[in-house]
Amino acid sequence: MSVLPESKDPTLFTPGPLTTSRTVKQAMLRDVGSRDSAFIELVARVRQRLLAVAGTVAGVYEAVPMQGSGTFGVEAALAAATPRGGKLLVAVNGAYGERLLQIAALLDIATSVVRYDEDQPLHPEDIDATLRRDADITTVAVVHCETTTGMLNPIAAIGAAVRRHGKCYCVDAMSSFGAVPIDLAGGAIDYLMSSANKCLEGVPGIAVILARRAMLLQSAGNARSLSLDLLAQWRGLEGNGQFRFTPPTHVLLALDQALTELADEGGVPGRAARYAANHATLMRGMRALGFRAYLPAELQSAIITSFRYPDDPRFTFEAFYERLQRRGMVIYPGKVSRTDCFRIGTIGRIFESDVLALLGAIRETLAEMGVTP
Amino acid sequence: MSVLPESKDPTLFTPGPLTTSRTVKQAMLRDVGSRDSAFIELVARVRQRLLAVAGTVAGVYEAVPMQGSGTFGVEAALAAATPRGGKLLVAVNGAYGERLLQIAALLDIATSVVRYDEDQPLHPEDIDATLRRDADITTVAVVHCETTTGMLNPIAAIGAAVRRHGKCYCVDAMSSFGAVPIDLAGGAIDYLMSSANKCLEGVPGIAVILARRAMLLQSAGNARSLSLDLLAQWRGLEGNGQFRFTPPTHVLLALDQALTELADEGGVPGRAARYAANHATLMRGMRALGFRAYLPAELQSAIITSFRYPDDPRFTFEAFYERLQRRGMVIYPGKVSRTDCFRIGTIGRIFESDVLALLGAIRETLAEMGVTP
Repeated sequence: MSVLPESKDPTLFTPGPLTTSRTVKQAMLRDVGSRDSAFIELVARVRQRLLAVAGTVAGVYEAVPMQGSGTFGVEAALAAATPRGGKLLVAVNGAYGERLLQIAALLDIATSVVRYDEDQPLHPEDIDATLRRDADITTVAVVHCETTTGMLNPIAAIGAAVRRHGKCYCVDAMSSFGAVPIDLAGGAIDYLMSSANKCLEGVPGIAVILARRAMLLQSAGNARSLSLDLLAQWRGLEGNGQFRFTPPTHVLLALDQALTELADEGGVPGRAARYAANHATLMRGMRALGFRAYLPAELQSAIITSFRYPDDPRFTFEAFYERLQRRGMVIYPGKVSRTDCFRIGTIGRIFESDVLALLGAIRETLAEMGVTP
Repeated sequence: MSVLPESKDPTLFTPGPLTTSRTVKQAMLRDVGSRDSAFIELVARVRQRLLAVAGTVAGVYEAVPMQGSGTFGVEAALAAATPRGGKLLVAVNGAYGERLLQIAALLDIATSVVRYDEDQPLHPEDIDATLRRDADITTVAVVHCETTTGMLNPIAAIGAAVRRHGKCYCVDAMSSFGAVPIDLAGGAIDYLMSSANKCLEGVPGIAVILARRAMLLQSAGNARSLSLDLLAQWRGLEGNGQFRFTPPTHVLLALDQALTELADEGGVPGRAARYAANHATLMRGMRALGFRAYLPAELQSAIITSFRYPDDPRFTFEAFYERLQRRGMVIYPGKVSRTDCFRIGTIGRIFESDVLALLGAIRETLAEMGVTP
């Protein structure tokens, strides 16, 4: 018996890997040589399109794909952005902010941290004050959409503070890039990190870094790894168009197709509109069922939403998850520290009809469990 | 116009990415949640099968897949294998041996090197002598099949020397694992590094490390990276069965299918036999055409072969490559330092008929170019 039967796949209401289009997956039904001219053209095109998604052009920013998960790209960028002997300031209000600190610890990078509760947004004035106090800080890093809760942090206002102090600014836009408009230059962003398998709706296996060219050129000697050397990766791609080390060719074929489909949908505004509709439908339906979101509406993104467990002893997440899964719907466990939550993502190749189907499945599941949220 | 038209893909006579089976690629036509029980089962099965390919079992060795290209896995293993303050001895006879040194340099690991010409095998007695002289060495690393030339290095004899001195032993078996029998325990191997997209005939995007459990357990604190932390990766997989950071789900679906097909082919001996037949056909044909291999036959693997350029001014690699490519055959540029060579791989989902087709295309191409090797 196959572990993964060849039936219809479940719909993924997660922060990724996501449900992708059939055509994105079909783009992988090929074997191409990684040094072949056609593949080199494809990589160049993907890099150009990534810049277009960010509303910028080569020369000002550079798009550098990096093998691995999104975290690999974050690590590569943080290393490039922090000179040896430098110091990284991280503003944290969730698990992905904490991860930035973990990366720095493993890279022997000194850190300073401004921490908030997970239901609080980052405050630009605190970052400004910290930068004023501590002249050793060379680099500031924050998470845009904190996937722990679904909160969107004020990256532009933080960027203004970082710019005033002339520091290097890294934004982890893992789960927002492609679906939330981001002004790289206006926001003073030097490095933006994301991944193919979030709002770009590709498959996992490649991270994406958008680097301000002038900053990247200054980063020589900053890499703490051969594999994750961002500057060397960029130089390789600029030199002969090839990856230094074997690229995930099929994942890149899928990303190229995914970027075509993003453009066909009207780019970032088009995709943002679909996700906003998905999210609005979800919130209406969940409220009607009696669920309460963890965050107030004004802090909540349309990417992923944390819902509090119903206040009913008959509710267990395991049973809830399992029953939804049997109905072909995959939701996500919570990650908030001190409140029991589960999460529902509204990104990927899913539409209002999918969200309505999920809401129906949740209603049935609650009835089966005898739970009233 | 599409950069990669939807016609038949070329046959890849390269060291990877390779031609894979249709069924391996079709396994990627799915979207699975990375935390889903079915995917967790698949990952466990893949890890078990990787141990079976190596002829070992969990508990003695542990299979740890790592996101990224093979080099990412090599870097993760070298870091785990070398304690802080340790010293790495590398025996080098090609570009992939040099890469081990590059990794160590970026990780701030002290090194010692024994270097040979690219047409010379590694000599175990030199490694033995170096270990006798330099007690600071903690770790020894060598490449099994040096893809620069196609040479198979004597890893078992080197392992015997390393064992006598009680050091940690890393073998980069990138292009040999799955097609050359390797005795992990008998060869005193502590870490073996390979990749999904070589002789396992999966697609690129995941590296594979087989680690002696006892050694891995001693490696706490050795990681120089969060992403490439081998011990943490293993602990994550052992803990809840999940990857710490998003795995390339589609690449793993393909690897699972590829491992089924490897077993169906009779495992390592079956695959080795097919590659040996591919290689014998290639050598016969190339000799008949007047080509000379770079290495003597007794040092040559069946994986990839370096051929000297014909001694004819009308030969240019670019024209040769281009004309073969137009015939749907992709060969590989040379990497030998001081001799002009090109390379032909005989691994991947290719058969004698493909090699015969390549030989025919080479014959026609030479005639068109007016070249007599």
